[in-house]
Amino acid sequence: MVTLRSYVSGSWRAPAGEGAPLLDAATGEEVARISAAGVDRAAALDHGRTVGGPALRELTFHQRAALLKSLASYLREHREELYALSARTGATLGDSKFDIDGGIGVLFGYSSKGRRELPNDTVLVEGDVEPLGKGGTFVAQHVCTPLRGVAVQINAFNFPVWGPLEKFAPAFVAGVPSLIKPASQTAYLTARLIELIVESGLLPEGSIQVLCGEAGDLLDHLTEQDLVGFTGSASTAQRLRTHPGVVGHAVRFNAEADSLNCSILGPDATPGTPEFDLYVKQLVNEMTVKAGQKCTAIRRAFVPAALMDQVADAVGERLAKITVGNPANPDVRMGALASLDQREEVRRSLKPLMDAGRVVFGDPDQVSVVDADAERGAFISPILLRADDPERAEPHEVEAFGPVSTLMPYESAEQVVELAARGRGSLAGSVVTSDAAFAREVVLGVAPWHGRLLVLNSEDAKESTGHGSPLPALVHGGPGRAGGGEEMGGVRGVVHHMQRTALQAGPAMMTALTGRWVPGTDRTVTGEHPFRKHLEDLRVGDTAVGGPRAVSLEDVEHFAAFTGDTFYAHMDEESARANPFFNGRVAHGYLIVSFAAGLFVSPEPGPVLANYGLENLRFLTPVYPGDELTVTLTAKQITPREGTEYGEVRWDTDVTNQDGASVAKYDVLTLVAKRSG
Amino acid sequence: MVTLRSYVSGSWRAPAGEGAPLLDAATGEEVARISAAGVDRAAALDHGRTVGGPALRELTFHQRAALLKSLASYLREHREELYALSARTGATLGDSKFDIDGGIGVLFGYSSKGRRELPNDTVLVEGDVEPLGKGGTFVAQHVCTPLRGVAVQINAFNFPVWGPLEKFAPAFVAGVPSLIKPASQTAYLTARLIELIVESGLLPEGSIQVLCGEAGDLLDHLTEQDLVGFTGSASTAQRLRTHPGVVGHAVRFNAEADSLNCSILGPDATPGTPEFDLYVKQLVNEMTVKAGQKCTAIRRAFVPAALMDQVADAVGERLAKITVGNPANPDVRMGALASLDQREEVRRSLKPLMDAGRVVFGDPDQVSVVDADAERGAFISPILLRADDPERAEPHEVEAFGPVSTLMPYESAEQVVELAARGRGSLAGSVVTSDAAFAREVVLGVAPWHGRLLVLNSEDAKESTGHGSPLPALVHGGPGRAGGGEEMGGVRGVVHHMQRTALQAGPAMMTALTGRWVPGTDRTVTGEHPFRKHLEDLRVGDTAVGGPRAVSLEDVEHFAAFTGDTFYAHMDEESARANPFFNGRVAHGYLIVSFAAGLFVSPEPGPVLANYGLENLRFLTPVYPGDELTVTLTAKQITPREGTEYGEVRWDTDVTNQDGASVAKYDVLTLVAKRSG
Repeated sequence: MVTLRSYVSGSWRAPAGEGAPLLDAATGEEVARISAAGVDRAAALDHGRTVGGPALRELTFHQRAALLKSLASYLREHREELYALSARTGATLGDSKFDIDGGIGVLFGYSSKGRRELPNDTVLVEGDVEPLGKGGTFVAQHVCTPLRGVAVQINAFNFPVWGPLEKFAPAFVAGVPSLIKPASQTAYLTARLIELIVESGLLPEGSIQVLCGEAGDLLDHLTEQDLVGFTGSASTAQRLRTHPGVVGHAVRFNAEADSLNCSILGPDATPGTPEFDLYVKQLVNEMTVKAGQKCTAIRRAFVPAALMDQVADAVGERLAKITVGNPANPDVRMGALASLDQREEVRRSLKPLMDAGRVVFGDPDQVSVVDADAERGAFISPILLRADDPERAEPHEVEAFGPVSTLMPYESAEQVVELAARGRGSLAGSVVTSDAAFAREVVLGVAPWHGRLLVLNSEDAKESTGHGSPLPALVHGGPGRAGGGEEMGGVRGVVHHMQRTALQAGPAMMTALTGRWVPGTDRTVTGEHPFRKHLEDLRVGDTAVGGPRAVSLEDVEHFAAFTGDTFYAHMDEESARANPFFNGRVAHGYLIVSFAAGLFVSPEPGPVLANYGLENLRFLTPVYPGDELTVTLTAKQITPREGTEYGEVRWDTDVTNQDGASVAKYDVLTLVAKRSG
Repeated sequence: MVTLRSYVSGSWRAPAGEGAPLLDAATGEEVARISAAGVDRAAALDHGRTVGGPALRELTFHQRAALLKSLASYLREHREELYALSARTGATLGDSKFDIDGGIGVLFGYSSKGRRELPNDTVLVEGDVEPLGKGGTFVAQHVCTPLRGVAVQINAFNFPVWGPLEKFAPAFVAGVPSLIKPASQTAYLTARLIELIVESGLLPEGSIQVLCGEAGDLLDHLTEQDLVGFTGSASTAQRLRTHPGVVGHAVRFNAEADSLNCSILGPDATPGTPEFDLYVKQLVNEMTVKAGQKCTAIRRAFVPAALMDQVADAVGERLAKITVGNPANPDVRMGALASLDQREEVRRSLKPLMDAGRVVFGDPDQVSVVDADAERGAFISPILLRADDPERAEPHEVEAFGPVSTLMPYESAEQVVELAARGRGSLAGSVVTSDAAFAREVVLGVAPWHGRLLVLNSEDAKESTGHGSPLPALVHGGPGRAGGGEEMGGVRGVVHHMQRTALQAGPAMMTALTGRWVPGTDRTVTGEHPFRKHLEDLRVGDTAVGGPRAVSLEDVEHFAAFTGDTFYAHMDEESARANPFFNGRVAHGYLIVSFAAGLFVSPEPGPVLANYGLENLRFLTPVYPGDELTVTLTAKQITPREGTEYGEVRWDTDVTNQDGASVAKYDVLTLVAKRSG
């Protein structure tokens, strides 16, 4: 039998011994063996820091994002092979798609976010320039730079593909190499995933490594610039969080632990409403997908007290149709738990839950299976419990990590908010209702206890991804029991891998540090209009000055007649004076920006292709008839686009009057052709 | 002698015993006694959670920010009294202002940020709406809600006023009550500060409490919704971070530890340049302000090898002018350390530093003092060390928390980046140079190791607040040795006290949840133009529709002639066709928004006072002559302003063509009068 190898320090390393067997969840046959004996973990970390990190930091955010997209496409081509291996973890094809397609989706998602929301640069400039001195000679700017260490990613057994990829993608976009330690039980699938990634040859060497087997002394070799991301049980999270290697270096530690997530049925959602059916269907789905082995699964199902019987019946009826058995058999709806040990663990956890309530569907010790051996495979029936006293502690504290949920009644929105909070922190929750007032009260009431909350009803049901699906654009993680962490969330997840630093300097120095033109920096005015320059020739600071142009009362009246904008402040002296902001008739804001465009434009065909937008426009000083406008347009940020013939240029625009006061400030957004284009 | 009381659970509680003496740092006389024996810490936490939290959550961000401003003004009126008490901690008047005025400045800063950058609401809507389904029926929005616990703030002895206020201000704006535990040595000043705050009667009861004395079992009573913010030594940070009360509930723990901050002199900054003088002056200042007891003070002074002698001489010369002694004496430039114990600690730490280098100014065991007793008071001379081998470990590892710095040489930018990183994480650093290339290489090289970096030169020197000053708008904290935390940073510091939750729902439900109109939600079109409604009468979703209006070629030519914007894409059919984005002559973007304004405006005087700006304008589809424009304007966000007669209304604006395609989307920003106004 093959023993899994680790991909560390640039090659696949076989362990010193043959290791412990990993069994097929459904058949009990051996799939592989696992050990990391003799693998030099310190060297692996060092390899990430000295080879992977520098290679990644050579690339811009956009370049890294583009690699993720190529990788995602490559893995999509090989997914059938991963599905087949995934069945051996107990997963049905649907489960496998959730894991594998979901993981590939995270790569696509981060690729898209990285190119849309991050600069084509190696440093992330965050937020606005902060003026620190009244004279304008001292400013601050926050920037984020990639940490110089390795993101150590310790994953759970239940998502052998999605788990590593959702941690890897944001780290990679940030420019931080990953060292992945999969949970043993399903490590053969993660190992094959990494083999595919290495075989693709797409990623810089050192940017991804995998340690198959025990962590050993891995955490002893952490330094201040490393990170640890952990998904798994709350108890292991506590142990790792207090590891001397973590604490001694103030290593960023993020934990995501399975939690006692709840789903709340609104009082409006009585039988016969679409929401009643949605609630039942979602609950059954959450109980049975991955045989309930999802850290986001619904463990606590709160329903209006009057609806307890009806919900119990409807859920039971639907559960009765779930076929359990060989996950590779297409007729099977629910496969096996990941291992016989897991089944024992679920049965153990069921005991206290059964003290607090009673089983209304399923038998913890018996299940009829299709195309499988119920004892050799880690099969278990879905179990629905009912606890009529929701104040009992057990359902809020004990998690059976399998196809198990407990129905509980509530009497009021206030009470269900309190009950939801008794989970002491959850990854996800859902409220199934069409009643906006109920939804608002419950959602804002339980939000401090949740990382994600879904409101499900007929409005969103068709497109909803459901209670249990973390998405790359949304934060994943929750307070307290759920680990107190936060992953993904789009660009937030990238920033988790970076150090935020407040830079303080004079404006010209700040421009040099960030590559963005900061107001107060000298402008470069030459004979050549900057709109005549191709992207490669433009420099931040390149400036066009146009004007002055006087604005007459006739202009204002003409513009009003032409556009139809006859707002009184432009047309009626007396009413305009009565306005708290004006001393008489004023020019239209849209007239000001239109005249400004006339002053800064360079009419002949040239590299500037289009003005595609405008941002942060503020009208600062009223323009009265007789005022003279001057516009100063300065290249502020130049963003080449990978794989296109143009890039984006953002121009700081300042329209001033004859006294030098700014009457309008904004950013003009243009597309500018590359010379090569 | 008076024993300090604690303000907990709504009243001042005297401890059970008389406690330990706190001595005047300069005279050795007893100032007060301290003990928290018998104070019920669990009840205090509970009081914060059940009285302070709910009261704060009744207020909006703007209301809390306004209270901070009143509090800041109140404290400013009482600052003389605080200065006098501050002298007993060893602080000169200048030191006291740094601490007390600095702390009051944080309150003003957070008041201003809170009103400018947060909504006048109780929930913070963060980032954009994320579309999750292609049909537009499923969207997400991140929101932040205040944690329902208490912010436990454990402060250091060196900033008895600034320390608590910089932690309190963002917690308060977030809506989270504070429980402050000052360090014993200078707790009498913090206690008086809190007395003033309580006496002011400005804050809701329970929003601020102070525990004077030992923490005792405080952390044993934490829950998942509490936070701990700690400032102090790295070793205490490690102990608290692993406390079962913290770990067991995944309590957010933020540490800010003093670090081995560096200041780097650029190779351009030779004697005779302003930067050389700035470097020397700043170094002496950082060594002597608060007698060097600042976690941001410069411990490692890196200078080009060739300039070692000149820097040592210049710094020594300047240090020689520093008079040490009674801090209340206006002739004194440097006061005492906080206690005799601190002096012993500094002397102990100096030993290894003296192994790695030699003292070039000062005598650790001798100092001449003005108007004081050098032995009874905790006086020490400023000590400048020089370590000619910068590869020695000690100067990068051992901190003497007093007026002590070590000069070290470097040879290249690359080397000094590496040396700076050997501090293993710092709160602050500075680079003194006019050389932009050197600054960029060093700043971006050391950024991953720093929370804040100052580039100082003649451009910003006049307004610079210096190496050692954290500012409320900027993050404070650093990786690794500096604790791995982050405080302040403007609104970031508020969000540190909130739970971020991803909400998922249909657009109409999302509008109900967040109070912001989300595209896809039904619009309310009535006979009444929404511009005729006062702020109180407007509802999100209120909509005006204008148009259609055809755009003719004559309009385009007229607009071009009128504004002067004769860009070829508007004027020349052939050239326009050659542009990759257009199929012929197109209307000006500014024409589109001008016509749109003409279509949505309501001309007569009314509640809409002004269109003060515009955001996120994107031109999405070209407008060709003959196209017809319709504009749909929908109230998206309504923000009443406290204490004014108007508020801000943001209007979602969608300009569509005859095919229903959006040609431009943007937000129009208006000021709208209150009915009462």
